[in-house]
Parts: sequence; structure tokens; C-alpha cells
Amino acid sequence: MTDKIVKIEEWLQKHDSRFAYIADPTNVFYLTGFKCDPHERFLGLFIFPDAEPFMICPELEVGQARASAFGHEVIGYRDDQDPWTFVGKALEGRNLSSGKIFIEPGTLPFKKAMAVKELYPDASFSSIEAFLASMRKIKDSAELAAMKKAGEIADDAVRLGVEAIKKGRTEQAIIAEIEHELAKHGYSEMAFDTMVLTGENSAAPHGHPGSRQIKEGDFVLFDLGVVIDGYCSDITRTVGYKYVSDEQKKIYEATLRANLEAIKAVHEGLRIGDLDGVARKAITDAGYGEYFTHRVGHGLGLGEHEEPSMSADNDQTLQTGMVFTIEPGIYLPGVGGVRIEDDVYLSEEGPVTLTHYPKELQIIS
Amino acid sequence: MTDKIVKIEEWLQKHDSRFAYIADPTNVFYLTGFKCDPHERFLGLFIFPDAEPFMICPELEVGQARASAFGHEVIGYRDDQDPWTFVGKALEGRNLSSGKIFIEPGTLPFKKAMAVKELYPDASFSSIEAFLASMRKIKDSAELAAMKKAGEIADDAVRLGVEAIKKGRTEQAIIAEIEHELAKHGYSEMAFDTMVLTGENSAAPHGHPGSRQIKEGDFVLFDLGVVIDGYCSDITRTVGYKYVSDEQKKIYEATLRANLEAIKAVHEGLRIGDLDGVARKAITDAGYGEYFTHRVGHGLGLGEHEEPSMSADNDQTLQTGMVFTIEPGIYLPGVGGVRIEDDVYLSEEGPVTLTHYPKELQIIS
Repeated sequence: MTDKIVKIEEWLQKHDSRFAYIADPTNVFYLTGFKCDPHERFLGLFIFPDAEPFMICPELEVGQARASAFGHEVIGYRDDQDPWTFVGKALEGRNLSSGKIFIEPGTLPFKKAMAVKELYPDASFSSIEAFLASMRKIKDSAELAAMKKAGEIADDAVRLGVEAIKKGRTEQAIIAEIEHELAKHGYSEMAFDTMVLTGENSAAPHGHPGSRQIKEGDFVLFDLGVVIDGYCSDITRTVGYKYVSDEQKKIYEATLRANLEAIKAVHEGLRIGDLDGVARKAITDAGYGEYFTHRVGHGLGLGEHEEPSMSADNDQTLQTGMVFTIEPGIYLPGVGGVRIEDDVYLSEEGPVTLTHYPKELQIIS
Repeated sequence: MTDKIVKIEEWLQKHDSRFAYIADPTNVFYLTGFKCDPHERFLGLFIFPDAEPFMICPELEVGQARASAFGHEVIGYRDDQDPWTFVGKALEGRNLSSGKIFIEPGTLPFKKAMAVKELYPDASFSSIEAFLASMRKIKDSAELAAMKKAGEIADDAVRLGVEAIKKGRTEQAIIAEIEHELAKHGYSEMAFDTMVLTGENSAAPHGHPGSRQIKEGDFVLFDLGVVIDGYCSDITRTVGYKYVSDEQKKIYEATLRANLEAIKAVHEGLRIGDLDGVARKAITDAGYGEYFTHRVGHGLGLGEHEEPSMSADNDQTLQTGMVFTIEPGIYLPGVGGVRIEDDVYLSEEGPVTLTHYPKELQIIS
């Protein structure tokens, strides 16, 4: 039994609940340590206020599920069997009260909710998503260790990318180089599609790397992350090739200032919207406010984007144990873009950055 | 307007419908040519029996959506706006009847179905999934052209993998080599995680490649595919390293016979379950029936697994225009596994394989 499942049970006891049905594979992994990507197959974790939890997964995965930290009943089904029959039977044996059924409405397919409704026609659904997100946003020491490692490998990946810069090389070729070198060392799971954007392409915050070749005077922007034990890193660095113009230098310095000042401002209890404001002020003071077109960052963990959203309108406050990105950027159409992103852990002693690749403007020759 | 949307409209006219709400990004791409992976953001395509369709997507993607083959109203929303307000307004203007609302229950999150319910409290939901699947399983000439190309690149990828076999190399290193070479030529989107399994690892039909090093006497199994213009290929080949035992030779030959006989049996009107039977009989006759532990194949297209499922219990029949895999395998614990998989198109003249890497047992020296 993991502590996390105990927490869910305690929460269910306080919330007039019949049970919680957790179907999102990332939440199942978070709660049990059992990693399973069932695609179209069925995976379900059922947790109760006052009964033993159980998990249902494809027969092929039962061994791995039983070996996980879950430590409770695991039920397998074959491809020619209907998992809902097993769900029904296991629920029946548990003598349930008549409270609400908690689900993940943002990801649970309608069809699965209807299957629950067939078992309990009087069912009233409520969401457990916010509670799960509030648990996931505070990292424990094992989670932090994985994220530290993921940060280190992301630093290495940027270094590999910078070393791969050569006149005429395409964005795609540099990505291939980075991922090839990482894979050679056993790091083959990226947190998201690696982004290398050059020249005017770097001015699109969500550009698609392509066959553009590096030219003198380009910005080269790297945005990447790896996954270690399920946990993501996410780093962005921007360098110049051969030379940069005065304007490029100016937007680089403004972005760096925004990054540093925001990290410095991090402390327990700070309103998250105000953290966005710190970075935004640095960029606005430099005259580029309108070109910083996105939020300052996002929570990071098992998901490459998770709660909290570090945006101007977020009234939540920073809490010890959170890990999030700080990633101000300036995107000047036709000129190029700069983004400088770090992963930050809020420790009891204050902010600790998990990404360390140097941030001073680097000109590659 | 694409022909495909007209088909949906005609179908809706016959099915007492108010509208269809298509949210799955792959189905949206199939119907409009607009490729968008909105993650947690909203994407919706609304089609009516007797009104103009519309699409809602993030503001940043509106330009691309308007440039697609869709050719109808595209509505964008910013991150600080609620897309459902726009959905409600656009629906209001369309003078709808009171029929059923068609959705994709297998993928549509419960929360989105409830948002529709809020607009139409009397809504009764039905599924359009089976109709979409029946459309998607018959490929037109443009789809076939993409899949032919995807098959050719998959052939190249296997060739690259076979060339990368060296004593002591790990499974992961070979995968990195294949993907690095492909990416250099601009093919960086794989259809699924590339699988290279060696020795006893090859006996797990869904094994995870790791740091096992190639040894003499190993089978090396490659299972991979690429994506071209959205369409997938999926090939498996198995080769020996230095030498193979008599038993390995025997299971190889039985698998090859099953693959060839099943492909030869493909014809319009054949019950799909019987196609599985042809492959299964060849392997059972060789004495290995119990080690062929999965269906003979699956439909292929925008999804790496789509309809039809080529399994023993499928009473549907093969139709001209279908593309599917034929992939018998034998997995002998402790010895190793063989799988030989081709992508097959059923043309008016009979089966055409889209994958061509040689299938005779190859021993790499």
C-alpha cells in the first residue's frame, strides 16, 4: 500500500463517496508505481473509503502490476473477456455505501463513464481531478531525485545540441544528433518532441523544426526534456551563431533578466500570478512586453505540463515542494526569438534550479 | 468541402440527427486535412444534416485550419476565452432539429459530453465511431500513395537496422542508429516506439528494448513503422546472428509459411476470422499453435492499430480498399521469437504488399 493511496482513502472518507475510479495511466502510475500504457485496452484502479482497493489490467501485465508498490488485489483479463464483468464482481463484494462516484472527467472517455452508470444507474459523478493535481504538485524526495537527474540529462542534451551546430546543418539534423547521442547512453525517452529552431523560425514559440539550415547571425533555440523514472525535465536555451545584432543582444539580455528575477522572486506563499508579473515587468521595462506572448511557466512532474499553470490570472500561491518551469521569452517576427527556461524546485530554503546549462549569451563560432 | 464531410452529412440525414461533434484529432484530420494536436486545448468539428459545418480551434492554429481542405467556417479562441461560448453561439445560428447528437464515446472525455449536455439538456447521445471506422478502413488513392511511401521507408529502416547489427551492440543502440539515419533523411516521425529485441527477449511479443547485447545464435527482431502525411507503416522482420539452431530454423520457416499463405488467401469477401485461421493452421500444423499468442493482424492507416481487427472472432469480410497487417509469430520462451509482418492492400486485382524487405531467413555474419 502506498501512502498516496491512503491519502485518497482519507479524502474519500470525508467526501460522501462510494468509490474513486482512476483510469488515467499517469495517475495510476503516480498512485501505485505500476507503469502501463494500455492503449485501447482497459486499466482501472478502484479506491474506497472503507474497503480494499483493487486494480484491473490486461492479463499480460498482471505480473508487473503485482510487483509494483500497490500491494493489493490485481485482477487480469484476457482480450476475449469483458473487463467490466470483473469490475462489477469486485465491486459487488465490497459492500459499498451509496455516495458519489469520483472520476477524472477531463480524460475519462464518455463510454467508460456510461459503463459505470450501467453498474450503478443511480450513480452521481464527481471529479477527483483537482485533488489528484494538488497531490501531484507537491513532490516527495524520490520524485525530486528523479527530476534532478532528468534536469542533469537535459543539461547534457543542450550541450550536445550546441556542439552539433554547424553552418548549413538543418534543425532536424541537430535534433537527430542530440537524440542519437542520448540514446547511446540509454536515455531514449524524451518528455516531448525535441525542438530546435533557427533564425526567424525561433520567433514562433511553438514552431515546428524542419529543414532550414543554420546561417551566420542566427539564433538557435533548444527546447527539450527527458523522462527519468516517469518524471520530466524541460529546458530551453538560446545561443547565437557566429554573431548577433544589437537588437538580438538586447532581447537576449531582457529575457535573461526576466528569468533571473523571476527565479529570485520565488518563495513560499507568493501569488503565482505575481511571479508571472515579475518576469513580465522585466521584459516590459525593456520595451518588449507585447512580444512575451505566453505565461511564465507551468508545473512539471509526471506530465510535461501539469498544475499549477504559472499564468497572470492564477491566484494560487507557491508551496514548498512544487516543481515548475520559469521560461520567459521574446519573439520578434522576422528577427528571431529567445526563450530561457529552467526547472525550479521550491525547497524549504528557497528556490533550487534543477537545470544548470549556462545562461550568459553564448556565440558559437 | 471534402467528399468525406459530404458523406457524413448524408449519413446524418438518414439518422435522425441534430449534429455530429467530432473531437478526436485523428478523425478531424481525416475529414478536413487539418492536423492539430491540441493537447488539453479544445478542438471540435461540428457537422450537420442540413447546415454549414464549422470547426473551433485555438486562435494560433486558425490560419492553418483555414488553409486546409475544410473550406468552411473556422472559429478561433484565445487561451483566456471559453471555447464553449463560441460553440453555443455557432450552434444557435444553425436552426437545428431535435435529433440525436453523435459523438465519439470511446475517446470523448466525459467533461466534454457534459458541456454539450449543458447546451442541450434534452440531448440524447449516439455513437458515430463505427461509421467513421467504416469510412477510414477503405483507403482512397491519396491515402494509398502515402501508405506505399511509408512502406518503402519502413523497408529502408529494417535494412538500416540489419546493417547496424554487431556483436555486443545493445538493442537500444541499434534503435538509435536506425532513427538517426532516418531522421537525417527527414523521416523523424515513427508510427510507434521502434522495437529491436534480441535473443530470448524476442520471445516477448510486446517486449521492451533494453541494454541486452547481441550474441551469436540470437534472433534479432525488428518491429517498426514510420508516418508519411499522417499515414503509418508497420513491418516486422526477424534475422539470425552468426548462426541459428535447428529449432530456430523450424519456427522461422513455420512463421514464414503462415505469412505467405495468409497473404495468398486474401480476397474480397473472405471472412476476416478465416484469414486468421489460415495463418494459425500453418503454425499449428508445424506443431507451434500454442506459441502463436496473438491475432494475425490489424487495420492500418492514420492509426497504427485501427479497424478491422484481424482476429479469429471477427465475422466481417475483407473489402477492396482495406489496408491491414499480416503478422504471424511464434514465441518460444527461452529460445526466442519470430514474427514476420507485412502491410497488405486489397486492390481490385487482389492483395498488394506495401512492405518488401526480403523474408527468407537471413543469417548476419
